[in-house]
Amino acid sequence: MIKVGIVGATGYAGAELVRLITNHPQAQVTAVSSVSFQGQKLSEVYPAYLNINDMECETQEQVVEKSDVVFAALPHGLSQELAKQCVSKEKAFIDLGADFRLESEDEYKEWYNGEFLDKELHAEAVYGLPELFRENIHKGQKIIANPGCYTTCAPLALAPAVKLGLVETKGIICDCKSGVTGAGRKPVQSNHYPELNEGFHAYKVASHRHTPEIEQTLSKLAEKKVTVTFVPHLLPVNRGILATCYADIKEGVTFEQIRKAYEDFYKDEYFVRLLPQGMNADIHNIKYSNFCDISLHHDKRANKLIACGAIDNMVKGAAGQAIQNMNIIFGLDEKTGLDIVPPAF
Amino acid sequence: MIKVGIVGATGYAGAELVRLITNHPQAQVTAVSSVSFQGQKLSEVYPAYLNINDMECETQEQVVEKSDVVFAALPHGLSQELAKQCVSKEKAFIDLGADFRLESEDEYKEWYNGEFLDKELHAEAVYGLPELFRENIHKGQKIIANPGCYTTCAPLALAPAVKLGLVETKGIICDCKSGVTGAGRKPVQSNHYPELNEGFHAYKVASHRHTPEIEQTLSKLAEKKVTVTFVPHLLPVNRGILATCYADIKEGVTFEQIRKAYEDFYKDEYFVRLLPQGMNADIHNIKYSNFCDISLHHDKRANKLIACGAIDNMVKGAAGQAIQNMNIIFGLDEKTGLDIVPPAF
Amino acid sequence: MIKVGIVGATGYAGAELVRLITNHPQAQVTAVSSVSFQGQKLSEVYPAYLNINDMECETQEQVVEKSDVVFAALPHGLSQELAKQCVSKEKAFIDLGADFRLESEDEYKEWYNGEFLDKELHAEAVYGLPELFRENIHKGQKIIANPGCYTTCAPLALAPAVKLGLVETKGIICDCKSGVTGAGRKPVQSNHYPELNEGFHAYKVASHRHTPEIEQTLSKLAEKKVTVTFVPHLLPVNRGILATCYADIKEGVTFEQIRKAYEDFYKDEYFVRLLPQGMNADIHNIKYSNFCDISLHHDKRANKLIACGAIDNMVKGAAGQAIQNMNIIFGLDEKTGLDIVPPAF
Amino acid sequence: MIKVGIVGATGYAGAELVRLITNHPQAQVTAVSSVSFQGQKLSEVYPAYLNINDMECETQEQVVEKSDVVFAALPHGLSQELAKQCVSKEKAFIDLGADFRLESEDEYKEWYNGEFLDKELHAEAVYGLPELFRENIHKGQKIIANPGCYTTCAPLALAPAVKLGLVETKGIICDCKSGVTGAGRKPVQSNHYPELNEGFHAYKVASHRHTPEIEQTLSKLAEKKVTVTFVPHLLPVNRGILATCYADIKEGVTFEQIRKAYEDFYKDEYFVRLLPQGMNADIHNIKYSNFCDISLHHDKRANKLIACGAIDNMVKGAAGQAIQNMNIIFGLDEKTGLDIVPPAF
Repeated sequence: MIKVGIVGATGYAGAELVRLITNHPQAQVTAVSSVSFQGQKLSEVYPAYLNINDMECETQEQVVEKSDVVFAALPHGLSQELAKQCVSKEKAFIDLGADFRLESEDEYKEWYNGEFLDKELHAEAVYGLPELFRENIHKGQKIIANPGCYTTCAPLALAPAVKLGLVETKGIICDCKSGVTGAGRKPVQSNHYPELNEGFHAYKVASHRHTPEIEQTLSKLAEKKVTVTFVPHLLPVNRGILATCYADIKEGVTFEQIRKAYEDFYKDEYFVRLLPQGMNADIHNIKYSNFCDISLHHDKRANKLIACGAIDNMVKGAAGQAIQNMNIIFGLDEKTGLDIVPPAF
Repeated sequence: MIKVGIVGATGYAGAELVRLITNHPQAQVTAVSSVSFQGQKLSEVYPAYLNINDMECETQEQVVEKSDVVFAALPHGLSQELAKQCVSKEKAFIDLGADFRLESEDEYKEWYNGEFLDKELHAEAVYGLPELFRENIHKGQKIIANPGCYTTCAPLALAPAVKLGLVETKGIICDCKSGVTGAGRKPVQSNHYPELNEGFHAYKVASHRHTPEIEQTLSKLAEKKVTVTFVPHLLPVNRGILATCYADIKEGVTFEQIRKAYEDFYKDEYFVRLLPQGMNADIHNIKYSNFCDISLHHDKRANKLIACGAIDNMVKGAAGQAIQNMNIIFGLDEKTGLDIVPPAF
Repeated sequence: MIKVGIVGATGYAGAELVRLITNHPQAQVTAVSSVSFQGQKLSEVYPAYLNINDMECETQEQVVEKSDVVFAALPHGLSQELAKQCVSKEKAFIDLGADFRLESEDEYKEWYNGEFLDKELHAEAVYGLPELFRENIHKGQKIIANPGCYTTCAPLALAPAVKLGLVETKGIICDCKSGVTGAGRKPVQSNHYPELNEGFHAYKVASHRHTPEIEQTLSKLAEKKVTVTFVPHLLPVNRGILATCYADIKEGVTFEQIRKAYEDFYKDEYFVRLLPQGMNADIHNIKYSNFCDISLHHDKRANKLIACGAIDNMVKGAAGQAIQNMNIIFGLDEKTGLDIVPPAF
Repeated sequence: MIKVGIVGATGYAGAELVRLITNHPQAQVTAVSSVSFQGQKLSEVYPAYLNINDMECETQEQVVEKSDVVFAALPHGLSQELAKQCVSKEKAFIDLGADFRLESEDEYKEWYNGEFLDKELHAEAVYGLPELFRENIHKGQKIIANPGCYTTCAPLALAPAVKLGLVETKGIICDCKSGVTGAGRKPVQSNHYPELNEGFHAYKVASHRHTPEIEQTLSKLAEKKVTVTFVPHLLPVNRGILATCYADIKEGVTFEQIRKAYEDFYKDEYFVRLLPQGMNADIHNIKYSNFCDISLHHDKRANKLIACGAIDNMVKGAAGQAIQNMNIIFGLDEKTGLDIVPPAF
């Protein structure tokens, strides 16, 4: 059994890790920490976990000590020091935050106003989006930068078309809609029930921090610099992201070729379900699971590809993908503990 | 008091007309009809109206007879005959359906598989989007084609930029999200509560019937043929449409110029609220009212205008706008009965 | 026009007062105050009110100065001093808080841990539940204790049976369910969207502060001390209270007699709609309005009366009823500004 | 591996069985049937199951043939014939419908207007509420009458108090609130999204068919005839039942004794979580799991016990409990495949 420690266990991503690791046949939660709830039981914070995980929240140090792998779900800026500690003690470190995701320190500075404390450490980190960059993630890897939610969903929806050069990389638009858990557990006015319920709006329009991360992934696939227009919106649901992505189809390319390219690209990917033509990706159908559903659409009149991707922002967009990465670096089958049937309702 | 008849009063748009006309100081509902509920009281169909409107549903003929103006909320194809009857009896006719919206019979044929039964009748109809085409809507007008919901929201969000030539008309994208009432009152599997709740998906991607109507409006404003990519989505809320519209800013034009153009364009329009820069249009803030809130955003990196429009699909997107049109053709102040304060929650 | 001042205008009840007074033909908001948002515009706090009420929040003193009547929506304990000020300046004072509701200082001490600062002031206050105690509310009244939400709904559902002695007063149970706005605007963990959404639970079981107020009303009606079991629950909706009330039918009394008694009791009450037998009171049907819908049911096997009452907790349960009281004390028709059609959806 | 057949697999209970059996380590779905969708793939009906269960819906006969155990989720009246077939072929039969739940044919006639086709068959059936009647459910049992949702929740909340004679059995009230999946998958007007959303109401007040079943269970526990007042309500959520149950505490009994009795009664029951005093049972915390959370409350003034029980109506109230019963009759640990962590949000 892999000993799993979770730092920041009382945030939503941390709590979801607890749920998924508890169901994992080859891993177990051995320690959890939380700055806000230190000394309290996890099940006092989340009564859903009563009798299931009644561990007390300990310190980060205790968590590191007791674990083979440390998952960190921390505000950005706080993971780098912890990563260093883990590496020095030969623990694997999987970061659900943003500190190791961007390869360019300039971009990290621009978007997060932070800096790379230790460039060698950053050099050791790999970006853990297995379906697109599995070749970089090796057994024994020490630091995983686990992608963000939007940055998993939109790139998966666009990857085959971008990588195979079937669409123009200029003018790509990602119009994304996320459930509220993506905004975190801290009560804020805008997510107070009566203010969000029966509402819907865009936020951080063309200025969200996931922008450079989406671009980094698409640029790697395209092997050239790609810029996107990324607009997130807040949905009055708990979970799920739908990314509606628009790209101009290259001259001479048919929609059927694109469809075929997606089929080939994802044919061995258990967690990506390319929907039959005519269906629409829906967050309703992947909740609580690690699936990414993709539907493809053709605007014949404007000759655009419209690719819709749907994930659970807390699973494939956070905790589930982190465990997928853990499985890889510990030499397990990627699906272990993640072959969850999404509920039909 | 204007005598108002409502044909198709038991559908959602019809029911909303009843609510709004009941509150109108210079109009009253004198008769309602419904094919499905003929002989039943409106308040049996909508218990919210108990003691307020307990009228029995009569026949279309009776409604026409008893009214100065007939509002029709019917499935497409059924309004033309009724319009003819109304005109012959010198009653005003306001059509909330699609029969008179498209000026091109070819497009009507292509998108609705219908035909214009009487071209003269169509020639008499005017398209009732007052903020954009008020000069066409005259006192005494006999037939109003009341715009659809998406086709009110997206054009209002884009109008100043398109009309003044500040954005490229090629490549415009309207990514729209609508509450469920837009799909009608008839129970269907996809809108059964447990299947829609906590879900979100696109539908009729780049193939929705509102596409040619949006294009007709934008083409008139631009004075050239405009094609748009229109993708509607279904939100798990009762009311509201958010249109997130993307357009490339023309070279040499600044975002500040665009902002200024919107301010000028809408400065006398009571029902359009251009939000202060930094705010995001939210369907939460216009529910039950006839307002259209618009927020403007600039993607500096891709130099795109992103305009978000929010309306209540049942009010500004249907019944409210229809009454706004009634007010005009009966010589009343446009706001009469429509100066509704949107609830704060 | 009555000049209306609102103290605590940025809470939910205060904001609802703004909405309703704005629609009132014989009253207007002349000043608003808020401790938390002093100096800010009301429409910055509630963007729904943009262009409709852009007043700045002033001090309590300013509000009192500018008004004929002051509505206070304050945490308990803060109204007494303000009432005194108002009375001394000959302003009417309508308190949406709890300070003047209980006639017994002992009960106020027991349940609110407060005291009556000025017994004479309390002697001047009348309890403003017009349908039950209209004879006490006179034109020119200076202090109105506006009832709470649960304490309006449950008593209205039970009143005819209790007053006419048709049910046993021992063992009455009020199982009540409220929308979230009842818990206030302040963001708290338990009402953070993801924690409340898709959830439902009781709270303050048999210990909620509305208990003695419900009992005070029922005791007056019964002319003897009545004790009730009151259990509130939190519904994942914005607005509405449903009170399901249980009482043993007295021997010799038939359900039909009870039905008839309700019909007589409420036959002239515009705001109470006794539903036809066979229907169920539903918060869906009274939202945004001042109606209280009541349905009556008979458990024949246990011979219990089950009376369901539904109100909008923010209207009949707060701001609407407060305006109803204002109308009375200013000599207007009670319905003025309150004949709102509840939306059908 | 136990071969599981599901008759009525496209209803909500059937679909939930598919989800849970797929996750069960010692059982697998071998065939499914559906009258409405025969010949279609299950994943066409529920796209959530794409790639997970793409079986075609077959006939009942085929399902029986291919299975060791047949689960039936059918409208009442249709299970008896099928049970007979199963028994004759030595297949176990677990009925999620009502046909075998009531022991009294008179009550079945009164409440369901049906009859017992074969009294011997009924004599073979046992009522499968393991926490209360485990001693009746034996390995090798052939027919299980799986309890209904309300009839699992309310009795579990009341059982220790009733069985040990700590409360009066006269005057018990079960005020219950259920998520919409309890009303089935068929689209009906009342559960059309806009009509249910933001609504709440009681239904079938004191006349719901689960009444005699609740009474049967409580009567067995009390060893005398118990009558209850049962009022169900419909919650605007997908899943979950909260039962708020009221009973008079017997003279001489303290609340602490009751608390202690519950602790003892349920101390070895994995699926029942008696919450620490001060907490409130919430459907939020048991969703998708087989847990029943119970919180106890004391109305000191009326000396009533208020017991709140919360279950997922589709799991402990249907499919999960059915699998719990399967585990017992096949000699497996009761928890097998059911030790699901309820999501924290």
